[in-house]
Amino acid sequence: MPLPKPVTALAPPMPATLIERFAAIVGARYAITDPGDQAPYLRDDRSLYHGRTSLVVRPGSTDEVAAVMALAHETGTPVVPQGGATGLVGGHVPHETGAEIVLSLNRMTTVRAVDPAGNTMTVDAGVTLQQAQDAAAAVGRLFPLNIGSKGSCTIGGNLSTNAGGTQAVAYGMARDLVLGLEVVLADGRIWHGLRTLKKDNTGYDLKHLFMGAEGTLGIITAAVLKLYPAPRSIEAAWVAVPSPEAGLALLNAAQERAGPSVTGFELMPRNLFEFVLRHLAGARDPLAEASPWYCLMELSTASAAGLRETLEEILAAGFEEGIVTDAALADTIDQRNTFWRLREGMSEVQKLEGGSIKHDVSVPVAAVPDFIAKAVAACYAYMPDCRPVPFGHLGDGNIHFNVSQPVGMDKAAFLDHWDAVQTIVHDIVGEFGGSISAEHGIGRMKRDLLPGVKDPVAMDIMRQVKAVLDPKGILNPGKVL
Amino acid sequence: MPLPKPVTALAPPMPATLIERFAAIVGARYAITDPGDQAPYLRDDRSLYHGRTSLVVRPGSTDEVAAVMALAHETGTPVVPQGGATGLVGGHVPHETGAEIVLSLNRMTTVRAVDPAGNTMTVDAGVTLQQAQDAAAAVGRLFPLNIGSKGSCTIGGNLSTNAGGTQAVAYGMARDLVLGLEVVLADGRIWHGLRTLKKDNTGYDLKHLFMGAEGTLGIITAAVLKLYPAPRSIEAAWVAVPSPEAGLALLNAAQERAGPSVTGFELMPRNLFEFVLRHLAGARDPLAEASPWYCLMELSTASAAGLRETLEEILAAGFEEGIVTDAALADTIDQRNTFWRLREGMSEVQKLEGGSIKHDVSVPVAAVPDFIAKAVAACYAYMPDCRPVPFGHLGDGNIHFNVSQPVGMDKAAFLDHWDAVQTIVHDIVGEFGGSISAEHGIGRMKRDLLPGVKDPVAMDIMRQVKAVLDPKGILNPGKVL
Repeated sequence: MPLPKPVTALAPPMPATLIERFAAIVGARYAITDPGDQAPYLRDDRSLYHGRTSLVVRPGSTDEVAAVMALAHETGTPVVPQGGATGLVGGHVPHETGAEIVLSLNRMTTVRAVDPAGNTMTVDAGVTLQQAQDAAAAVGRLFPLNIGSKGSCTIGGNLSTNAGGTQAVAYGMARDLVLGLEVVLADGRIWHGLRTLKKDNTGYDLKHLFMGAEGTLGIITAAVLKLYPAPRSIEAAWVAVPSPEAGLALLNAAQERAGPSVTGFELMPRNLFEFVLRHLAGARDPLAEASPWYCLMELSTASAAGLRETLEEILAAGFEEGIVTDAALADTIDQRNTFWRLREGMSEVQKLEGGSIKHDVSVPVAAVPDFIAKAVAACYAYMPDCRPVPFGHLGDGNIHFNVSQPVGMDKAAFLDHWDAVQTIVHDIVGEFGGSISAEHGIGRMKRDLLPGVKDPVAMDIMRQVKAVLDPKGILNPGKVL
Repeated sequence: MPLPKPVTALAPPMPATLIERFAAIVGARYAITDPGDQAPYLRDDRSLYHGRTSLVVRPGSTDEVAAVMALAHETGTPVVPQGGATGLVGGHVPHETGAEIVLSLNRMTTVRAVDPAGNTMTVDAGVTLQQAQDAAAAVGRLFPLNIGSKGSCTIGGNLSTNAGGTQAVAYGMARDLVLGLEVVLADGRIWHGLRTLKKDNTGYDLKHLFMGAEGTLGIITAAVLKLYPAPRSIEAAWVAVPSPEAGLALLNAAQERAGPSVTGFELMPRNLFEFVLRHLAGARDPLAEASPWYCLMELSTASAAGLRETLEEILAAGFEEGIVTDAALADTIDQRNTFWRLREGMSEVQKLEGGSIKHDVSVPVAAVPDFIAKAVAACYAYMPDCRPVPFGHLGDGNIHFNVSQPVGMDKAAFLDHWDAVQTIVHDIVGEFGGSISAEHGIGRMKRDLLPGVKDPVAMDIMRQVKAVLDPKGILNPGKVL
């Protein structure tokens, strides 16, 4: 169950003198002690966690971050680094004891450099994903990372959690879009690693150690991001398919025909789509008849022409093979955006249907249909009226296997089944050699689950690396490890 | 200068009882003590290093590798892991003291699994790159890593050195083509990390730590590799360009028009091409007139049609802009292979022109023309008759900045200038924020240079990680760090 255990002990309040020393680094204006002003830094979007702290600091530069960490290291003060505070596993929320300070990067919002000829961009950690996308687009380039929270999530958080999203099928995860990092270590030292090189085999690849570490090994303060040519053509289709197997066959056919031009491939069940039709303002079914499953397929290329034909060929072949039963093609950018709004609305509408037990899992791409069938059956066996709504990034094998409560059931009573349902789903994930966190990370929510699913030698190495990089254990303690 | 210092002291010979204990693990047949039989394990292709050892072991399984390392750890025996022994920086060659044993993976040659539906392949470390490419092709898939030594280099070596090669412009480096690893640690523990998942955010990304570590942190024994759809169309052109600036403009134009379909983009100077014409059997100039520079451009896609037209459009636009002066398009697979043979021959023909001082460097892609101009001028200023032949992977900013000796000069006398020329070139690389090892690694050759070019905090982190993963310092000592 993701809900925190009741608080048993509050930490002693931080001495006023120490608060003053931290405040002197960032300036009093950016050292928040007022509980009301602290509130946005102590919560998560699902309201699963409610942290406490004596102090939120908002440094304005890498040097200030370094000075904060040097003082934290000297005094043994635990620190929770925070970006846009949109994480889904509680990694950015301090514990209820109030022992930790929060270090927010949200004042570091400078796009330091954009180099369209070199296809790179150097940004502060606090730059939002939207801001980064816009800066790339302004010079005719694409920064392909794309997730629902792009308006408020930050690059530092994206990299620290190795965010995934809808374009990962073609461009990879957040870590795959990075050439260099600047990182403040636990003791306040700065690693100046803002390299703009595509190839650099001079020693161990440290950047991949800090990315995906959820702020437990260092604080990412800036990054060099890869840019791509802005696509000249984009085509999208909302496709009715009879089953996840058919969706997988369509994915394979699309990739065989269009390769890396398949820049989005999402799978969605009818029942979840009905949530959208019920609750999302203006939502309409693009197709005349209901289908048990849908795919949203997007193709995009740097070439000017021929993409519509490719899409039509893929769909026509799919009709003939019986893996596609109907499809709507976007004729305008508005229509394409409408398709994506239907898909992106699927996260928010679930809460309007009551309690939801959520799993962010992945299995090998080819195993997705079998995984869904087995996990859905197991959920029904456990609670016949529950409503599994598995959806997500089929192209990456990443399914958000969420289970909505039975109609009319008490929400809290349903959520009491979190642990049991989670065990059922995660066990099946394990049978397929899958992952219990495909893209959201471990944070606090899955920390206790990690040793049960991770290779014990890998756990040992993680603990050893943590101990050597953060010997006092002050960086985001109690998260991940 | 890459040549090893004279041996000042031989290590005491390994006790016969210890040799017997190692031999008992792998079987006497695979424990080589005869100097003649050891010879292929003690050299590098450029004959820069000449190692000694008491013992070469050739384990046949991961468990045997683990048992060898457990015994090495127990007895403090240093170990040099080795794949195909094709490395260019001496990382795979034991030192002249004879203190180290060599652990060759060349008996572990099993392709464990190929999954075309899931686009993955699981292979032993000793599988050659050619064998891996062939196993992928046999199921209609592409494993895109491609380097000149593919017939003898191994996947384990490719990953340990994070190999680059000619397709990196589209598919990335070796590390980008891996989903999971199996690694034997210094103390003989096995990390079972052969995941086949595209997304897995459960903790620190350990695989990127072992890849590119050149066998100093662990021994990669197997890997899960990514596969791609086999391209349906491939087009290649041998293009005359007036300058590196024009080559860069052509690269950018090609990528803007064809995006990830640009799967090869090499830059070569006329003087090096003349080496090829002189020495490579059957080599002929595809073009009627000489050009100061050439690009070899390859496009490939999963789509069946339209690629030739795209290539012709790119070249036609290049003619109009004056960045292309002539071009030969491959009409057959044979012609395409001929173009690539001309390019790949450029490495071997240099030794037929006498001494060569070599640099494997990278700079930001957009800086390549300025870097070449400045470095060539500096070399001429140092030695007016020297012959710089900068060539390589323009699409990655990776130039093999090699300098051939003046015609008629004594080879050894020329090679005495190695350190001086290297300093000149590397200093200019540094001015451009470049790397002194783009794709070959550090090994032994550049070990002493590393602290001078690497961020000191990064060096510290590397040393800390090394100390914790290999506390006795037995894994490939004296390499990288």
